[in-house]
Amino acid sequence: MAEHPSELADPAYRDAVVELLGALANGELSAFQQIADDAKLAPTLAARAELGAMAVAEFGHFGRLRDRLRELGADPDVAMAPYAVALDAFHRNTAPADWLEGLVKVYVGDAIATDFYREIAAFLDADSATLVRDVVADTGQAAFVVDRVKAAIAADPSVGGRLALWGRRLVGEALAQAQRVVSERDALAPLFEGSAGRTGADLAALAKIFAKLTEAHAHRMAALGLSA
Amino acid sequence: MAEHPSELADPAYRDAVVELLGALANGELSAFQQIADDAKLAPTLAARAELGAMAVAEFGHFGRLRDRLRELGADPDVAMAPYAVALDAFHRNTAPADWLEGLVKVYVGDAIATDFYREIAAFLDADSATLVRDVVADTGQAAFVVDRVKAAIAADPSVGGRLALWGRRLVGEALAQAQRVVSERDALAPLFEGSAGRTGADLAALAKIFAKLTEAHAHRMAALGLSA
Repeated sequence: MAEHPSELADPAYRDAVVELLGALANGELSAFQQIADDAKLAPTLAARAELGAMAVAEFGHFGRLRDRLRELGADPDVAMAPYAVALDAFHRNTAPADWLEGLVKVYVGDAIATDFYREIAAFLDADSATLVRDVVADTGQAAFVVDRVKAAIAADPSVGGRLALWGRRLVGEALAQAQRVVSERDALAPLFEGSAGRTGADLAALAKIFAKLTEAHAHRMAALGLSA
Repeated sequence: MAEHPSELADPAYRDAVVELLGALANGELSAFQQIADDAKLAPTLAARAELGAMAVAEFGHFGRLRDRLRELGADPDVAMAPYAVALDAFHRNTAPADWLEGLVKVYVGDAIATDFYREIAAFLDADSATLVRDVVADTGQAAFVVDRVKAAIAADPSVGGRLALWGRRLVGEALAQAQRVVSERDALAPLFEGSAGRTGADLAALAKIFAKLTEAHAHRMAALGLSA
């Protein structure tokens, strides 16, 4: 990839990009693991294979983010490490009780991640932004999930109430962990402080991003036949 | 792929090929799941990523075997289903207690599978045989495992005794499940009965294959610094 020294010449900014890519890379590796795990709950081998393919896609995303970290001269492990605690806490606090909860988690998690990637790309250097947009453009296996969840609700409407609560818990936990990370990781700040040639954003702007993610989540839940 | 009607024209033989490919496909899907699981025990993110890549490779193998099943006009789910019980039993009876046991299991499992694929290819129609040989030629990430295990034994020789026992248990359990499957699944028999144009093998020949696998396993354990 061609580099734009004007953007990455500032070491604090470069470090912030590395921080963010480290968080995303760890998130993808962790999603791979989690979805592979959820696949065990699949009622059929075909469904297990579908979820397996989604897990493999997440691992592919992880690989691309890791490669970008190396291009930036960073050690991927070091960049990823600070986010292990929050990711573990998220997955521990949102362990699906059954196959449907697992599906909803994959769907919600994937959708929120996609929205977040698109929002955050605006704050990244051009090459990292292209990569991040590219990575999320590659999903779209969610149709499988939507079909399954809708069919389950149609078969037993009481499932809808339970999954609606579950969706709320997922997004609440995701935002709680994200907020914690943002407040604790000072190294991310230069990304949002604004500087010549980049769109700036402060913590208020970040709060607006979270609000947008939450709103988009509510729309998706409604489309799924669930009230957020 | 070009078909050889002379081989697959016999419905019983074709069904037997489907049976075997179903067993292999389920084995690969199950290996994907298991290795992704073992990755959780990794002491570092880099090691977790290495194991993740191995899991992804297994999923790729699964996909190719599933495609071949479809080419043969079979429903992959139906072909895979009979092997779920034996595979689940194998993994349940050999759940690794820690990272090193997980690594040894990946190594032993991958190596035995590779040997078995090579042996069994001789009994398959030409296109299936090419696919099966091709699938196993693609591994070779085992060097990573060998290095880690050797380093762990060098650091603490008592680890060697424990892992040697573990290796014995793995191969014993694998052969027990394989024997059970072979004796229960009559549909596999035409593969080994021999007919014009194919190498035939009866149960005695199959027992010889198992003996060869066990011997090769012993050599590998010794190379790892473990007595089998």
